[in-house]
Amino acid sequence: MTVHAIGKAVPLAESERLSALFQKLRDAAFDGVGISRLAYTAKESEALDMIEAEALAAGLPTERDAAANLVVTLPGRDASLPFIACGSHIDSVVQGGNYDGAAGVVAGLSVLTRMKRDNVQPLRTVKLFALRGEESARFSRPYLGSKCLFGKLTPTDLRTPGQDDGQTMAEAMRGVGIDVDRVSAGEVLLDPATVAAWIELHIEQGPVLIARNLPVGVVTGIRGNIRHQAVRCEGEAGHSGAVPRWLRRDAVFGMCSLISNLDEHWQRLLERGHDLVMTSGIVSTDPKINAIARIPESVRFAFEIRSQSAETLAAAYSLFLSECAAISSERGVRFHLDEKITADGATMDAGWVDRLSMAANALGIPAELIPSGAGHDAAVFANAGIPSAMIFVRNQNGSHNPREAMEISDLVAGIDVMHAAISQAAMQ
Amino acid sequence: MTVHAIGKAVPLAESERLSALFQKLRDAAFDGVGISRLAYTAKESEALDMIEAEALAAGLPTERDAAANLVVTLPGRDASLPFIACGSHIDSVVQGGNYDGAAGVVAGLSVLTRMKRDNVQPLRTVKLFALRGEESARFSRPYLGSKCLFGKLTPTDLRTPGQDDGQTMAEAMRGVGIDVDRVSAGEVLLDPATVAAWIELHIEQGPVLIARNLPVGVVTGIRGNIRHQAVRCEGEAGHSGAVPRWLRRDAVFGMCSLISNLDEHWQRLLERGHDLVMTSGIVSTDPKINAIARIPESVRFAFEIRSQSAETLAAAYSLFLSECAAISSERGVRFHLDEKITADGATMDAGWVDRLSMAANALGIPAELIPSGAGHDAAVFANAGIPSAMIFVRNQNGSHNPREAMEISDLVAGIDVMHAAISQAAMQ
Repeated sequence: MTVHAIGKAVPLAESERLSALFQKLRDAAFDGVGISRLAYTAKESEALDMIEAEALAAGLPTERDAAANLVVTLPGRDASLPFIACGSHIDSVVQGGNYDGAAGVVAGLSVLTRMKRDNVQPLRTVKLFALRGEESARFSRPYLGSKCLFGKLTPTDLRTPGQDDGQTMAEAMRGVGIDVDRVSAGEVLLDPATVAAWIELHIEQGPVLIARNLPVGVVTGIRGNIRHQAVRCEGEAGHSGAVPRWLRRDAVFGMCSLISNLDEHWQRLLERGHDLVMTSGIVSTDPKINAIARIPESVRFAFEIRSQSAETLAAAYSLFLSECAAISSERGVRFHLDEKITADGATMDAGWVDRLSMAANALGIPAELIPSGAGHDAAVFANAGIPSAMIFVRNQNGSHNPREAMEISDLVAGIDVMHAAISQAAMQ
Repeated sequence: MTVHAIGKAVPLAESERLSALFQKLRDAAFDGVGISRLAYTAKESEALDMIEAEALAAGLPTERDAAANLVVTLPGRDASLPFIACGSHIDSVVQGGNYDGAAGVVAGLSVLTRMKRDNVQPLRTVKLFALRGEESARFSRPYLGSKCLFGKLTPTDLRTPGQDDGQTMAEAMRGVGIDVDRVSAGEVLLDPATVAAWIELHIEQGPVLIARNLPVGVVTGIRGNIRHQAVRCEGEAGHSGAVPRWLRRDAVFGMCSLISNLDEHWQRLLERGHDLVMTSGIVSTDPKINAIARIPESVRFAFEIRSQSAETLAAAYSLFLSECAAISSERGVRFHLDEKITADGATMDAGWVDRLSMAANALGIPAELIPSGAGHDAAVFANAGIPSAMIFVRNQNGSHNPREAMEISDLVAGIDVMHAAISQAAMQ
């Protein structure tokens, strides 16, 4: 990977401090393959303690909020004004990477530390949130730390057993000091009206910044999605040699026709400027009965579409349904759809997207506007009504794996942008 | 199913005799689910004994040939002339049906019995062959009974262990009295020059005669095939939400594009009058790593094409290769092909196809010219240089399963055609 020269000398001391902190976090959570820092475990608490120690050493006061997240504060001159929040999550998946989540926590800490070091006393308070439990790796549900703050966890969520040790979410939360009765009652632990903005830095989990050779991206929105875990295309079995084309009801040819037709629709929607991705990550004929000489009578496949726009998502889903119907009548197959699962997306705040872009521009850091395909705590803050924005940092090899590769110099570029934008906004 | 009225009263006695014989064969080999009469087993020998008993009762001499097949003879006036052979195989797959194979043996016996009953003494000898081991169910290799006759089994074939009890093919053959040393040496046990023709009746294993509402078909050729057991399309994994279309290398979209493009070529080839079928009976992403939110980095699929024409087969295979190449460069995926497996087809003898069609026509039995998609012993006879032909009898639900459904009245129509054509040819 070529590290993009950002036209600004990186302060060596900060870069070394960041590397040392990541090394410390890594050493504490290395599992032999990657990083395991799961939601509401001792490993997660230990990482929060490390961040807290750094904050205290920098002279920044700390506390744990009602959801046991770490909060670091740079007090503003007017405590009655809504504060600016930044941060990300500290937890990881099993055998994950060291940067997915932690990079945003460390970046937020750097922003507050720089302001403190520079003796800036902003008008508004600025807070870092090091959130717990963003990954669904332990409880099959994401955004626990932020949802908990806004009363969005249900009693059903709280009964979910952990995939590691079977301990329920409620038990695990109680273990780190959370008053689970308040959470279960849906109490709002953090009043959105007190928060002026949520700014989250995260490594990019896709390859766009690498491909475009840019250190930093400003996120325009978080894609929502519509999923079917298992669509079954049902046709009719037959001897592969003995049934002519006009009498076939081939399930695999039906599925391939569906995907290919949708791929054409996808291209057309992109050409018209819509945001959309489409994936069928799991495909299988029935291993008990499939054979090379048997026309497949059924095939199961997963289907997912994502878009920042609810309208585009609805339009693409309606194309999916109409193609299923058309192919059914053309080919004598049937598509059986399982439960339709929908996850809301979120639009990032236009004012903050501009502020971050202009800050990057002023610093001479080339930044690209890109959508986030993966979900983030920022979606929970945005959907709670808090103006939210995100900065992506260039990263190779995706995330949720030990091969994540972010350059510290790119992270510093992201911190520069975040620091400039927050410093400016905190003065108003 | 509507039984097609063939405009001719079926002699009740023969129809009842046929039903009783099938019932006897069924009772001896019923396994609780279907018929199990595997190659070179006691069940197979027992069925041959039943056919032999019927032949002897009709006054027809019998013997076992050097490959332990049952041979029933209606002697001609000139023993020096090449004889006309008819028949099919007596073995079945595991939990198979009672008609796949046995219908042709019983039909041949009926032809000889009718000629004997009518006191016809033909110029040429007519022989029924009840062949062993056509199905690959036991030894993963088909046409053993006919290949054995023409010295086409190899020492490697003979060492193949049975899928039932592990006994090798050689041991099983020795058990029914075959001199395996002659087989292993590739000795020709039946001189093709002594055989004037091979006529085989078989149930249709496809749905064409049912769909066209015809009792009988005359086979134009047996489709050869080209197969890949497992093609692997390789792309690149990625987060399903985070990678835009232009940076994707989606293996499933690559495979679907291949199948859809080939489906269009297939339609075009059919419109131009080519004979072709195309199947991908096994498809699977890697169950160890696939996930709904992961762009699939690979998918495996079987691929098979069949045609009566070697030229069409070669043309379709070359389209397959060029589509693989085009999609690879379009989509950044790669297709890894495993061993290309080829099975030769066979063209049925044009003179015999005409003779059978004209016989059907003269009897007022509507018959359709159709290709055979499945392989048959007739391909082995044809490829040994013997003029060969086949009659298909309407049958519902395919074959290799206990739900095979042939009407005895349709079988009698097939026997009528076969009897007329063989009687005529045996006089010349």
